[in-house]
Amino acid sequence: MSSMSPPQDLAGIRHGMDETNRGFMEAISRGDTAAAVHQTYTRDARILPPGAAGVEGREGIARFWAGAVEQLGVTAVELSSVDVQPLGDGAYEVGRATLTLGGGQQAAAKYVVIWRQEDGRWRWHVDIWNMEAT
Amino acid sequence: MSSMSPPQDLAGIRHGMDETNRGFMEAISRGDTAAAVHQTYTRDARILPPGAAGVEGREGIARFWAGAVEQLGVTAVELSSVDVQPLGDGAYEVGRATLTLGGGQQAAAKYVVIWRQEDGRWRWHVDIWNMEAT
Repeated sequence: MSSMSPPQDLAGIRHGMDETNRGFMEAISRGDTAAAVHQTYTRDARILPPGAAGVEGREGIARFWAGAVEQLGVTAVELSSVDVQPLGDGAYEVGRATLTLGGGQQAAAKYVVIWRQEDGRWRWHVDIWNMEAT
Repeated sequence: MSSMSPPQDLAGIRHGMDETNRGFMEAISRGDTAAAVHQTYTRDARILPPGAAGVEGREGIARFWAGAVEQLGVTAVELSSVDVQPLGDGAYEVGRATLTLGGGQQAAAKYVVIWRQEDGRWRWHVDIWNMEAT
């Protein structure tokens, strides 16, 4: 993919998104939620977690993830894209996530992420999810 | 708002979105989930409801809403936009919803909607939500 590719180039967007999602999964797997958040979210990103109030800004999001990983004993997050659509200079992604929790239990979630480019990377700008089962 | 306004015109988008959201709330209030869904969602829209699998296509979404309204005794939905951002020829909205359930109980939800224009109206193309409290 040439660096001159327009933002509408779906293959280029997907490549950038894969890189970011892979980085997030790897950082969570090694227990580094700070790195996971800082390389993944835009500075003024917003998350809307189930069962809690929304959180704005990367610092607050880092605190949220550190707390959630600690509280639930998350050892891994597996992300898989279901649908990716470019939208202007951004994109949105519909996906599935599988969380591995303490004791090896797994929980399935669905998510929508609004993607933006920031500092030359594709990053999560709005991130909302919910669980597949009640 | 002139009909020549470009899609990037935020005031024009918000006007169209308000009209659609108002139509949805009114139709739910009079118990007409079929109208609520048909005037609000794109034909190939996708919803990602908490505690259930995702649903694709307006017919399936109409069945989902009819079932949910029946099961929970929803008598009203109040939508309020928190953030609206144009994205290419679409837009995304972050918002809050208050559902009035059977017995007058209320439940607070957060949502993200990806908006698209279809048949001259702004409609919900991707709709995901979760509840504020567990």
